Amino acid sequence: MKILGIDGSGLVASVAIVEDDNLIGEYTTGYKKTHSQTLLPMLDELSKMVDLDLNTIDAIAVAAGPGSFTGLRIASATAKGLGLSLGCPIVSVPTVDALAFNMWGSSSLICPIMDARRGQVYSGLYSFDSKGDFNVEKSQCAVDFNEIANTINQLGQPVTFLGDGVPVFKEKISDIIKVPYRFAPAHLNRQHASSVASLGAIYYANGDCEIAADHRPEYLRLSQAERERLEKEGKA
Amino acid sequence: MKILGIDGSGLVASVAIVEDDNLIGEYTTGYKKTHSQTLLPMLDELSKMVDLDLNTIDAIAVAAGPGSFTGLRIASATAKGLGLSLGCPIVSVPTVDALAFNMWGSSSLICPIMDARRGQVYSGLYSFDSKGDFNVEKSQCAVDFNEIANTINQLGQPVTFLGDGVPVFKEKISDIIKVPYRFAPAHLNRQHASSVASLGAIYYANGDCEIAADHRPEYLRLSQAERERLEKEGKA
Repeated sequence: MKILGIDGSGLVASVAIVEDDNLIGEYTTGYKKTHSQTLLPMLDELSKMVDLDLNTIDAIAVAAGPGSFTGLRIASATAKGLGLSLGCPIVSVPTVDALAFNMWGSSSLICPIMDARRGQVYSGLYSFDSKGDFNVEKSQCAVDFNEIANTINQLGQPVTFLGDGVPVFKEKISDIIKVPYRFAPAHLNRQHASSVASLGAIYYANGDCEIAADHRPEYLRLSQAERERLEKEGKA
Repeated sequence: MKILGIDGSGLVASVAIVEDDNLIGEYTTGYKKTHSQTLLPMLDELSKMVDLDLNTIDAIAVAAGPGSFTGLRIASATAKGLGLSLGCPIVSVPTVDALAFNMWGSSSLICPIMDARRGQVYSGLYSFDSKGDFNVEKSQCAVDFNEIANTINQLGQPVTFLGDGVPVFKEKISDIIKVPYRFAPAHLNRQHASSVASLGAIYYANGDCEIAADHRPEYLRLSQAERERLEKEGKA
């Protein structure tokens, strides 16, 4: 089974092709270009490098949110366009779950934190059992950092933090977190489309996918424009 | 600190740029092309995508062996050529250590197995402590699979297998291994230059690097040509 993974939920742009237990290829950049400049050229380049016929793709797994609104729209539009033209289904992978899946087999709780601005993080809590099965301890959500920190302190287990929220909340982590904690290193601490594809393969095997026409990103919050309109209407 | 990571030790060709805690970019292919067709074009492509000026690289970390002799020579020649022209040092990262480093933070022992042909594997045993510090329990070596299996059974701890030896020795693992075991998933089970660069950054910080002129791959075994010449001379 061949799965194309796409992640554009943060600063990172990443595409990967996973076939069963093999990573055929992955191209990841964490750089200030917009994903409209990177995602499709990277997929095109990777496809040429591994002689990929896109028609052989069985499903497209996309990090469907939360994350940067523009990034999510570019990634989902890419997945949707390819899915419609190739006639293949889309697996919507929760962004925070895919980030946690980088840490497959970890001995600790896993807490991805993505900077959601306005004092909030996109976060969740995850663990792996001894067989490597993935457990969602707290589903992805948009919350104040203090809220996820309290939950971690209550659980009382060691935790690994990762994600672009780490540099933003590092001082707060040091102030608030009362359990042993560590930070994932560079090769695992941001989005990887191979994780999206690996986790997507599990969802797909469980029948958890949709036709391309039905796919929509999951923003978890209102966009700035929507929020401001509502505030204006509330005031009016 | 900016580190260029290169891995050509197996079927996988991989290049990555890591700056401190950030993965700037990574390009990985696990495909039947020879590394002379892939490594430098991938680096060139990646450099353009992230506007990398190679002169800003502080060190080159290369998976220096063991592995495919041709692959190692291509990767080391690439690292050495770049190191000489850029005047930057080389960090020789043991291939098996870098593979294990994919599994940063794992709850189990880690046993990479690379198929070394002639019944042997390139392997080693590794673990991470609760802080995420990396422990080499048994240094990388070329051994019969049974030997590493016996060590694992004696240690009596759960283990995670990864590497291109897994499909080759899967049946043997099921027959011989008496501890709980699991196999790393697709996004972590083969070489990643980002792991080479991440681990290389630790070695570099400890002063463990060499000038490019001194760099040589570590084959761990004689090449087929050397072995056959010795056998012939022994017979003569």
